[in-house]
Amino acid sequence: MNRLVDALATLPGIGARSAQRIAFHLLKTPASEAEELARAIVELKKNTRQCDVCFNLTDAPRCPICSDPRRDASTVLVVEQPTDVASFEALGMYKGVYHVLMGRLSPLDGLGAGELTIDALLRRVVSGQVREVILGTHPTLEGDGTALYLVRELAASGVRVTRLARGVPTGYSLDLASKAVLADAIHARQPMTGD
Amino acid sequence: MNRLVDALATLPGIGARSAQRIAFHLLKTPASEAEELARAIVELKKNTRQCDVCFNLTDAPRCPICSDPRRDASTVLVVEQPTDVASFEALGMYKGVYHVLMGRLSPLDGLGAGELTIDALLRRVVSGQVREVILGTHPTLEGDGTALYLVRELAASGVRVTRLARGVPTGYSLDLASKAVLADAIHARQPMTGD
Repeated sequence: MNRLVDALATLPGIGARSAQRIAFHLLKTPASEAEELARAIVELKKNTRQCDVCFNLTDAPRCPICSDPRRDASTVLVVEQPTDVASFEALGMYKGVYHVLMGRLSPLDGLGAGELTIDALLRRVVSGQVREVILGTHPTLEGDGTALYLVRELAASGVRVTRLARGVPTGYSLDLASKAVLADAIHARQPMTGD
Repeated sequence: MNRLVDALATLPGIGARSAQRIAFHLLKTPASEAEELARAIVELKKNTRQCDVCFNLTDAPRCPICSDPRRDASTVLVVEQPTDVASFEALGMYKGVYHVLMGRLSPLDGLGAGELTIDALLRRVVSGQVREVILGTHPTLEGDGTALYLVRELAASGVRVTRLARGVPTGYSLDLASKAVLADAIHARQPMTGD
């Protein structure tokens, strides 16, 4: 019992008390259901791997996006985490492929370039099929630092490097915008036509 | 007493109970303080007017921004409210001038082009000194509608029309970005250099 509570308490969002509640719940659950949960956890670990190309989580050597011939493999959106891929895929409008860094440069946490999939990205770009790399790291200090590092690493390849547009977020009030957001919005203002 | 409570309760953020609390507070306050407050209210109304050029609130026929020869009068940032001017001025980086619409087009609330300062904006642009109009309406449905209306009205003038950059807001996590924000961010992605 204590082993399970301790294991559950390591999960994100589950504190000591929720862990105990879940453990007691499982104690009362029929054995078959509890075993099903245990099996699902083991299977997840056994069957989930990273795509050989983009490092997104998948159950095959190549993820469904990288294997899809309708996706434009010449445009690579570089993101920090698999959850970012999910966010962009939910749009249904991005037709290119991804590269998942599996984190961002974070010197304070000891996360350097070697801990991320940056070498693999550079090899992908050098291989010749990539025409544009879109830097989709988060618009935070560490995300921007990572993007800047990648720009420099990619400079020699001659590939086109862009980043996600920075500005005021559609749907929000300007009253809530920070100074940094307003400064970006003026600085990178976009030509407008009536179409 | 009732007249004061009713008057106070019409102010934004002040309900019937706060109005009563304030009224009782004023009752206990020395007469000189209460009169000072009353006088400040009257003076505000008497001395505050709109700038003849940009319609920002000011105490002179021309606001300090429009009268400042160091400001670039050829670039006009169109905003909805005087509070927006204050937000952009707080940046200290915008060197152009403003035009305050005093609202945004809102057909449902009966706010049409005639209720805003659009005619005055068009006259300003036609007068010849303006080279660029930056549409700084809020990135909301009504703000965007107003911007689109202005683009069409300004088309004949031949002046350059831009809008505030739309995209992911600096400093936030992508996890919090809505679909509309991510779609904008990919669509309007910006070339990146290592400088």
